[in-house]
Amino acid sequence: MKKILAIDAGGTKITCAIINENGEIINEVEKYSTPKKINDLTQLFKDIITKHETNIDMTAFATAGAVNISNTKVESSTPNMPDGYNQLDFSTLSKKPVFVENDANAAAWAEYKTGSAIGEDNSITITLGTGVGGGFIVNGKLLRGKSGRGGEVGSMKINGKGRICTCKRTDCWESYASGTGLKATAQETAISDNSFKTSIFNSKNPQDITTYDIIEGLNQNDEYSKKVFNIWKKDLITGLINITNIFDPESIIISGGMGKFINTEEIEKTVNDEIVVSPVKIKLAKAGNYAGMIGCALLASEKF
Amino acid sequence: MKKILAIDAGGTKITCAIINENGEIINEVEKYSTPKKINDLTQLFKDIITKHETNIDMTAFATAGAVNISNTKVESSTPNMPDGYNQLDFSTLSKKPVFVENDANAAAWAEYKTGSAIGEDNSITITLGTGVGGGFIVNGKLLRGKSGRGGEVGSMKINGKGRICTCKRTDCWESYASGTGLKATAQETAISDNSFKTSIFNSKNPQDITTYDIIEGLNQNDEYSKKVFNIWKKDLITGLINITNIFDPESIIISGGMGKFINTEEIEKTVNDEIVVSPVKIKLAKAGNYAGMIGCALLASEKF
Repeated sequence: MKKILAIDAGGTKITCAIINENGEIINEVEKYSTPKKINDLTQLFKDIITKHETNIDMTAFATAGAVNISNTKVESSTPNMPDGYNQLDFSTLSKKPVFVENDANAAAWAEYKTGSAIGEDNSITITLGTGVGGGFIVNGKLLRGKSGRGGEVGSMKINGKGRICTCKRTDCWESYASGTGLKATAQETAISDNSFKTSIFNSKNPQDITTYDIIEGLNQNDEYSKKVFNIWKKDLITGLINITNIFDPESIIISGGMGKFINTEEIEKTVNDEIVVSPVKIKLAKAGNYAGMIGCALLASEKF
Repeated sequence: MKKILAIDAGGTKITCAIINENGEIINEVEKYSTPKKINDLTQLFKDIITKHETNIDMTAFATAGAVNISNTKVESSTPNMPDGYNQLDFSTLSKKPVFVENDANAAAWAEYKTGSAIGEDNSITITLGTGVGGGFIVNGKLLRGKSGRGGEVGSMKINGKGRICTCKRTDCWESYASGTGLKATAQETAISDNSFKTSIFNSKNPQDITTYDIIEGLNQNDEYSKKVFNIWKKDLITGLINITNIFDPESIIISGGMGKFINTEEIEKTVNDEIVVSPVKIKLAKAGNYAGMIGCALLASEKF
C-alpha cells in the first residue's frame, strides 16, 4: 500500500504526517512553526521530506491559495504565507513525486473519501471560518476549473446590502457567512437596531463587539445576539440555496470554526423549503483537523 | 455510424431530425404543433418514432423541465406542457433505446461538442430568453447532480432588491437577467427615475413598456432605455461573476433571444475585472436553434 507524506502548510504552522491509501494517519503527527522567509520555509519543507523520503512513495501538500492545474505551484498565494511562495515549484522539493492542492479542495476530497460525504459523487464542503471556502465534488471528481482555481464560492455575491469584503469587492458571501461576517453583522445591528439598547453588551462600543460576544449572547438568551445570529444565518442560507440549485448535491458538509454554532437540521429544512432541485442533506464535517492532509494524500495517491 | 432520431419537445412545437454521431443533421427537419393533451402528445411521439424507427439506432428527446437521473422521465414538468407529461416513461415509446435530457443541458453539450466551447472541458452555456437557463460542463462531463436537476442557476439569488420571481421566490437571477427581467427593470425605472419623463416612451404607462421598447430605445439613443439596459446588464454580470468564481470555466456561452443585444467583449472585460479566478471568455452560442436536438443526440449516442 502506498505511503504519502502529507504536509499542511498554513500561515502559522506546518503540520505533517504519513498517510496510507485509505486516508489513515500511520505515524505521529509533527508540527512546526511556519518560517517567515521563503528560503527558510523551502528548507523546512526539504528537511521534512529528507527525514521521511526513504519511507514514502510521494509527498502531498495542502495549502491556502490558488494551485495551478498541474498541482505543482501555488500561483496566487495568500498574505499569510512568505513573499515568493508563489515562485516555489513544489515538484523540485523531492526526488519522488510531489503534489500540491488547495486546502479547501483537499478537505472536500477527504470528506468525500473518508468523512461525511462517503459515496456521494456530488457533494460540497463549505468551510466557515475567518472566511468562507468551498470544495466541490461533481460526478465523483474535484471541480478545479480550467486553471485549478475553481470553487471560489466565498466570492459569490448574494445580496445588495453593499458590505465591503476583505477582497475589496462588495457583498461577497464570505463577507456575511464567515466568522468575520458575523462580527460585521453584529456591529451593523448594534447601530441600526433598538435591541442593542437592552442587550447585555450595551455598554460596549458597537465596533468592539466580537464574534465571541454574539455566541456568548446566544447562550445567555440575549435578544440582540439572537437577532444578529438570525441575520447571519439567513445570509449563510442564501448561499447554501444558491449552490444547491446549481449543483443538486447529495450533501453539503459544513466544516470550520463556525460550524459548531449552527443547527444543521434546522438549516437543512430551511434550505429544502426554498430550493427548486431535490432535497439536500446538510451535515457537519467528520474528517477533522487533518482533513486537508488526508484529502491531499488521497488525491496524490490517485495521481501517482 | 450511429443515427439518432432527435426530438425537441417544446410547449408550442415539436421539432425532429435524424442526427449522426458527429452532431450533423442528415435528413430534413420536421415540425409539428404540440398537442394540448398528453394522450395526443404521446401518440405524436409514437408516430414520429414509428416513421423513422427502422432507419435509426435510438431516439433522444430534449425538453424543458427536470429530467430524472436515468434519463427516462421528466419528473417536474413546466406549465407549457400537457398535464401528465411527468408521468410519461419515454423508454416505453420505442423498441430501441430512448433518452431524454433537459434542453438547457443538451444545448450546453452541443456547444461543447460542436459549437462555441469545443475542447473546453469546463464551460457553461447560459440561455437568456423568457427565463435564464444554464448547462454546466465540469471536467468534460455534464453537471446533472444527484437527481438530474442540477444547473438551476436561474434560481441563484444575486441581490436584495426584493423582486418577486415567477417562481414566487425573491431576487432570482432569472427575474433580472431574462427578457422578462429587462421588462420588469424598465417598468421599475419608469416609475423611479426621472429619465423616463424625457424618454421617447413617456406617453406610455410604465406597466405597458416592453422588452422590445427598450431595445428600440437603445437604437434611438434614448437615455431612459440606456439606463434600463445598463441596470439589466449589471444584474446579468453579477450572475456571470458568481458562476465564473465557482467554476473557473474556459468560457461562458450565451444563447437565447437576449444574446443578440449584448456586447460579449464588453461583458467579458467587466467580468474579468471582478473575478478572483483566471480570465474567462464570453462568447455567443454557435449550435443554433437545433442545439437541444444536437446535444441530446450526442449524449444519447454516448450512453447507448
